[in-house]
Amino acid sequence: MSLIVQKFGGTSLADATAMRLCARRVADARAIGASVVVVVSAMGRATDDLLALADEAHPEPPRRDLDLLLATGEQASAALMSMTLQTLGIRAVACAGLGVGLATTDRHTRATIDSIDTDRLRARLDDGAVVVVAGFQGVSPVGDITTLGRGGSDLTAVALAASLNADRCEIYTDVAGVYTADTRIVPDARRLDRLSYDQMLELAEGGARVLHPRAALCAKTYSVPVRIAHAHADGPGTLITLESRDMESIVVSGCALKPDIARITLAGAPNSPGSPSALFERLAEADVFVDDIIQAEADANTTTIAVTTHAGEAPDARRAAEFAAADLGRGAVTVETGLASVSVVGLGMRTHTGVASTLFRALADASINVRNVTTSEIRISCIIDAHDGPRALHAAHAAFGLARGASVEPVAPV
Amino acid sequence: MSLIVQKFGGTSLADATAMRLCARRVADARAIGASVVVVVSAMGRATDDLLALADEAHPEPPRRDLDLLLATGEQASAALMSMTLQTLGIRAVACAGLGVGLATTDRHTRATIDSIDTDRLRARLDDGAVVVVAGFQGVSPVGDITTLGRGGSDLTAVALAASLNADRCEIYTDVAGVYTADTRIVPDARRLDRLSYDQMLELAEGGARVLHPRAALCAKTYSVPVRIAHAHADGPGTLITLESRDMESIVVSGCALKPDIARITLAGAPNSPGSPSALFERLAEADVFVDDIIQAEADANTTTIAVTTHAGEAPDARRAAEFAAADLGRGAVTVETGLASVSVVGLGMRTHTGVASTLFRALADASINVRNVTTSEIRISCIIDAHDGPRALHAAHAAFGLARGASVEPVAPV
Repeated sequence: MSLIVQKFGGTSLADATAMRLCARRVADARAIGASVVVVVSAMGRATDDLLALADEAHPEPPRRDLDLLLATGEQASAALMSMTLQTLGIRAVACAGLGVGLATTDRHTRATIDSIDTDRLRARLDDGAVVVVAGFQGVSPVGDITTLGRGGSDLTAVALAASLNADRCEIYTDVAGVYTADTRIVPDARRLDRLSYDQMLELAEGGARVLHPRAALCAKTYSVPVRIAHAHADGPGTLITLESRDMESIVVSGCALKPDIARITLAGAPNSPGSPSALFERLAEADVFVDDIIQAEADANTTTIAVTTHAGEAPDARRAAEFAAADLGRGAVTVETGLASVSVVGLGMRTHTGVASTLFRALADASINVRNVTTSEIRISCIIDAHDGPRALHAAHAAFGLARGASVEPVAPV
Repeated sequence: MSLIVQKFGGTSLADATAMRLCARRVADARAIGASVVVVVSAMGRATDDLLALADEAHPEPPRRDLDLLLATGEQASAALMSMTLQTLGIRAVACAGLGVGLATTDRHTRATIDSIDTDRLRARLDDGAVVVVAGFQGVSPVGDITTLGRGGSDLTAVALAASLNADRCEIYTDVAGVYTADTRIVPDARRLDRLSYDQMLELAEGGARVLHPRAALCAKTYSVPVRIAHAHADGPGTLITLESRDMESIVVSGCALKPDIARITLAGAPNSPGSPSALFERLAEADVFVDDIIQAEADANTTTIAVTTHAGEAPDARRAAEFAAADLGRGAVTVETGLASVSVVGLGMRTHTGVASTLFRALADASINVRNVTTSEIRISCIIDAHDGPRALHAAHAAFGLARGASVEPVAPV
C-alpha cells in the first residue's frame, strides 16, 4: 500500500471551512487506498496571536517558554484536523509533542532534528488510521518541547516522509506550485512543472518562500519526491524530484527575491587565516545564521570580510564582529541594512556561459546598483538596495524570457 | 526549606496584568525562602474559545482530540506565567503534558490520576527554579494527552502537593475563601476561617464551587493543608485542615446549592438485589456519574430506584436505565430535569439533632416543595425544583443563623 505525507500550511487552515477543504484531500488519498500522514501548521494567524501574548508577558520572551507556547498552535490544529477527518468518516488520530517521535537538539526556537522514532506513527498507520501530526515541534534531550524555527512544518513533513520511506510528500499551500518568480511581484510568472532538488534548494535559499530551504535540503538528502500544490484548488502543482537530463537544457528556471538582508563588514583585519576564523567563531557563538560570505584582500597585510544575514540578526552579528575585531587586535565593523538579494537559478548555468552578464546588463538597464555578487554552481545572487528589489526581480525575469508566453529558451549571450 | 504549591484559576489569569498580579504572589513566597510549584488553569475564556473551535470542527468532538485541544489552554498559560515570573527576576521553568509527570487512565476528558512521577519537578526545584505546571492534564498509558475534567487544575495542584509532600497548597481564585453560602446568591454570607476536609468535601459535593470535590477528596486522603484565597486581594482566606474539637461545636457551617440536576427513576422493578445491580452496571457502562441514590420498596415484589445526576448526563442515564429495565424484564423509566439540591453541612450534626427539622421547617415556610432527601453523617441535601433554588439557599442560610452579624450558634431545636 502506498504511503503519502500531506502537509497543510496555516493559510490553508484559516477556519473550519478551509480545514474541511483540506480534509477532502486526505479523503481523496484514502479513497485510492493510500496510507496517509497529515502534517499541519498552526491555523491562520494563531502563531501571531501567541507571539503577541508572549510580547505582553516578557519584553524578550525566553526561548524555552516561547517554544512551549508556540507549539500549542500546531497542537490545536492537529486536534481539530483529526476531528474534521472524523466527520468525513475517516479514522484519525492526532499526535503532538512527544507523540510525534521527533527528537531534536535543545536549541530552542530553532532546534534541529536529531532522530525520528516512527514506531508509534507506524503502529497507528498499520492500524488503519490517518495520523495527524502537529508540525514544527519536537522534544529536546531533557524532554522539553522545542520548535524547528521558520519553515518547521515543511521540515516535519519532509523528514517524516523520509523516515517512513513514504512514496511522496505533498506540500499544500496558498500558491499552485513553484513559479518562475513570486507572482505577487511578477504577475506573469509561469508555474514550473518539475524542478530538481538542487534548483528548489537554490530558489529557496534565494528567497522563494514556497518551500523552506531546510525542507528542500532534507528532500534532496533523502531523495523524497515532493509535490507542491494549492490546498484549495485542483492543479498539477510542481514536482520536486531527481535531476533529469532535459532539465539541463533550460539555462535559467526561475528567479527569487530575498528582502530584509543586512551586510556586516569587518574591514582592516589582518590578512591571515586567523581573521575569518575569529569572525566565524564569534558568529557561531552568537548563533547567527550567515547567508553569504564575501572576502577581499585590501593589501598584503589587510583584508575585508563581509557576511550577509537576515536583518533581524544584524544586532547579534554586529556584536560578534566587534568581538572578533577585539580578538584580532584591529578591524572596524560596519553594518548596512535595507538590502535585498535577487537571484537567478538554473541547471543550464553549469554548461552555458553569459548568464551573469545577461543579469548584470538587465540590472544596469534598470539603473539598479549591484552591491555584491555571490554564486553557486547553479545560482547567481546580487545584493542590491531593498527598494530596488521588485524592479530587479522584474528585470531578471524578463531578461531570461521566463514570462508566460515568452520563448521558454532565453537568449543565452555567449 | 518549605515547599508551597500555588494554583491560579482562569479568571485570575485573564490577561497579562492579571497574570503579573499572580506572579507577585509567587515572588512573595520566594522572598520568604520557599520553594514554589505553580499550577495554572487556562487563561480567562481560552477553554471556551477552544470548545467553540471544536464544535465547529465536529458535532460531537471525539474525546481524545478534545483533550489534545483543551490541554493547549493550560500549556500556553504555563509558558506565559513562566515568562512573567522571569520579568520579576525569578528563575522559572514551565512544564506541560509529559513534563508534568502525571500518569492517568485513558478515560479521555475525565481521566483519573494513576501515579505521579515528581523526579523532574523535584530536580528543577532543587536547582532553585520555580516550576510552572500546566494544570488539568496528564498522559495516558499509550502516551496521549488526557484531561482530568471539571476542577482538574485544582486536582493537579492538590495531588502535586501530596506527592511532593508540600507544606501547603494555596488555591487562588476569584473569591476570598469559602463562605457560608455562595455570595452571589446570599450577599451577607460569611467567610469561614477554617473548615475540616470532610466539611469542604460535603460542601463541594453539595455544589459549593470554590473547590472541586475531587480536589477536596485528594486533600483529605493525603492530609494536604489547603488555603483558599483571592488571587488579587489580600486576606486570610479559608484554611482546609484536619478536624479540631472546636469545629464540632458549630452545628451547621455552611450551605450550598447545586443547580442542573436530573432525576432518573426506574419504577416497577423486581424487589430483589439484582435490580440495583442491573441499573448500576448499565450506568457504569455508560460512564455516568451518579450523585445520589434513592431506593424505596413499593410492595413485597416491586421496588423503585432513583438516581440524581448532572442534567448533562440525563440522556446517557436514561438509556442506561432503559437497558436495565430490559435486562430485568420489567420496570418503567422516567426522567425529570429542572431540579436542584440545597444542602447544609456541619460537623455538629453528628451530635446535635433537629437539623433536618429546622431545614424542612425553613423550606416549608418558604413554600418550597422537597422532592427527595439524602443525608450523610454531616450533610442533609434536599432535591427541589430548580426555580426554588436561590430562595431555598436563602431560607437555609437564615434558618441556621449563618449571616454576617447573626449569632454564630444557630438555635438547635431539640
